[in-house]
Amino acid sequence: MTLVAKPQSMRFDAPLPLQSGASIRGYELAYETYGTLNADRSNAVVVCHALNASHHVAGVYADQPGSEGWWDTMIGPGKPVDTDRFFVIGVNNLGSCFGSTGPMSVNPDTDRVYGADFPVVTVEDWVDAQARLLDALGIETLAAVMGGSLGGMQALSWTLRYPARVRHAAVIASAPNLNAENIAFNEVARRAIVTDPDFHGGHFYRHGVVPKRGLRIARMIGHITYLSDDVMNAKFGRELRGAVGEAAREVYHYTTQDIEFQIESYLRHQGDKFSEYFDANTYLLITRALDYFDPARHHGGSLTRALAAATARFLLVSFTTDWRFSPARSREIVKALLDNRRDVSYAEIDAPHGHDAFLLEDPRYLAAVRAWFGRIATELAS
Amino acid sequence: MTLVAKPQSMRFDAPLPLQSGASIRGYELAYETYGTLNADRSNAVVVCHALNASHHVAGVYADQPGSEGWWDTMIGPGKPVDTDRFFVIGVNNLGSCFGSTGPMSVNPDTDRVYGADFPVVTVEDWVDAQARLLDALGIETLAAVMGGSLGGMQALSWTLRYPARVRHAAVIASAPNLNAENIAFNEVARRAIVTDPDFHGGHFYRHGVVPKRGLRIARMIGHITYLSDDVMNAKFGRELRGAVGEAAREVYHYTTQDIEFQIESYLRHQGDKFSEYFDANTYLLITRALDYFDPARHHGGSLTRALAAATARFLLVSFTTDWRFSPARSREIVKALLDNRRDVSYAEIDAPHGHDAFLLEDPRYLAAVRAWFGRIATELAS
Repeated sequence: MTLVAKPQSMRFDAPLPLQSGASIRGYELAYETYGTLNADRSNAVVVCHALNASHHVAGVYADQPGSEGWWDTMIGPGKPVDTDRFFVIGVNNLGSCFGSTGPMSVNPDTDRVYGADFPVVTVEDWVDAQARLLDALGIETLAAVMGGSLGGMQALSWTLRYPARVRHAAVIASAPNLNAENIAFNEVARRAIVTDPDFHGGHFYRHGVVPKRGLRIARMIGHITYLSDDVMNAKFGRELRGAVGEAAREVYHYTTQDIEFQIESYLRHQGDKFSEYFDANTYLLITRALDYFDPARHHGGSLTRALAAATARFLLVSFTTDWRFSPARSREIVKALLDNRRDVSYAEIDAPHGHDAFLLEDPRYLAAVRAWFGRIATELAS
Repeated sequence: MTLVAKPQSMRFDAPLPLQSGASIRGYELAYETYGTLNADRSNAVVVCHALNASHHVAGVYADQPGSEGWWDTMIGPGKPVDTDRFFVIGVNNLGSCFGSTGPMSVNPDTDRVYGADFPVVTVEDWVDAQARLLDALGIETLAAVMGGSLGGMQALSWTLRYPARVRHAAVIASAPNLNAENIAFNEVARRAIVTDPDFHGGHFYRHGVVPKRGLRIARMIGHITYLSDDVMNAKFGRELRGAVGEAAREVYHYTTQDIEFQIESYLRHQGDKFSEYFDANTYLLITRALDYFDPARHHGGSLTRALAAATARFLLVSFTTDWRFSPARSREIVKALLDNRRDVSYAEIDAPHGHDAFLLEDPRYLAAVRAWFGRIATELAS
């Protein structure tokens, strides 16, 4: 049976205080739900999204073929996170450009579009906003919170900020913080955007332009870090554009500005697509939220001490060829949880696809998540 | 004793035919030499440079303290490549921006600065130009050719194009070709330059501007790939800018456009410096030469068949944390040479510094090169 998704929106009038000390007045959150909340309201699962995703996690929109949610392989009727058993909630984060209040919204203090004046939001702020949405939906406790990459950071943060409200947390292809190289890639992408003459200090909307050059570069950099070396070589190697067969490697056109290799064509295409729909200020905000996430920082750098607050049962998943958030980073979280004698399942999946693997259909990966959620469903039923 | 370097220049009036089918009319090569050519002209060593280097390989310029050549740790009196025994030649490649004819030179066909009209040059073209310089210097056979990274590709190419003129070749931190990820990083850097509004299709000189935004981004990307994850974490980690001591990790300023982390400050500084002196068209040309190098491509992809032409004795060196040109890539060359029963020494150096290690002072690395060149010097003397 096809799951039909319906976007919803919730308005919040109380200001949300932020980690930075600022606050957001009167905001909206776009969200979707799948499945049915059970009588004792105990089967809710919040799914947190990463950089380029939204509240549209699963299913398709009516009359829009090809509109599958970004984690539709994972979530739906009979799927690893089974919407016949769980009530799944996808929320678009504050500062995003897909429906929730963000830089393209009007600032009620000035009656102008926020642009660069949208306050800096953190993983913790997003979790607080998600908790308020649950309050509004009448859900006190989550059966589980889950997310991949930046979404995994939110899941981890949930267990620290609201330990009593989270019974299980699935943290997939994630990390306890960004390392210097991760921050470096984010910074180059941000510089490409900020130094694009069409950025206008973040107030480009007023000028009727979009810093597309910067967005393209940012997306190209992102794509390189999402994929593994192996999968790039398997998919593109040194194939030339438009070349076929044995001669494919032999005929160079000797150009510095035009496309010569297939990988260049792929990256340019990804960059072009992205620059058509993604908001530049949102890109800055979300990458900064990644940079800032670091639960150990108020505990002298000790992740073990930082995670002492978490009482949920955990599933950690990492992918062998993920060099953005390597298995070693997931193992740091596993170790810190075990130091605190927490219940942790850990699956290190041997997959060729790099960081992107968490979004793909890998049988062992899906089986691990299915088994873990199956146990939760059984507990709920008993 | 301090080695005093003196830049020289050689004019060539015969056109140089290029791999692309084009040719360069009347060009100059900047070069330097260190040590003394022996009576039978058998002790010459050509040193090939990588992206950001030049003919100024060793020594200092008179009255310019701090002007050490880029491989001064390696080359000089009593150093691993001992200029008391070898006559070392550094050549600036065609298309560069440090003295040899390049995009900033005047095109004799139009009497205007070449800019984007400078022909695409390849590793093979550079080697041909270097061979002509040797002809002019009256040197028929090289004791050795050596280079790191892109310089290593030139050293390898020397052994294929002029096997009878090269007795030894040192190929350091290099690869038999770029993989898809390498090309991808080059392409993003090029797109940043080409889409900078100040690039003007490569004819920015006419407009009195420089595409500094693009050059900055290109250099920042480059720097990330030159360093290892480990060394970036050791050097910068998550340290905040201007923060000292225990509190260093705790005080965020919550900004998306300003510098927050030390790594950002470092990268911006490197980008700024680079954009002040490096030519944008040269950047395109040199990264394209990297992309195009692929000796196996006319041999059905077989590196073994491609390297059958090489008769030199080889030294290959790689560095464990080099993820740009990993040890596996050097091992491909070693294997192909061994398949052809060539004499190969291979040192895989356990170093934390990533690709940059080939420019740094690592005792085991320098000892390996010293021993290998020592053997050559002994042969010369006997």
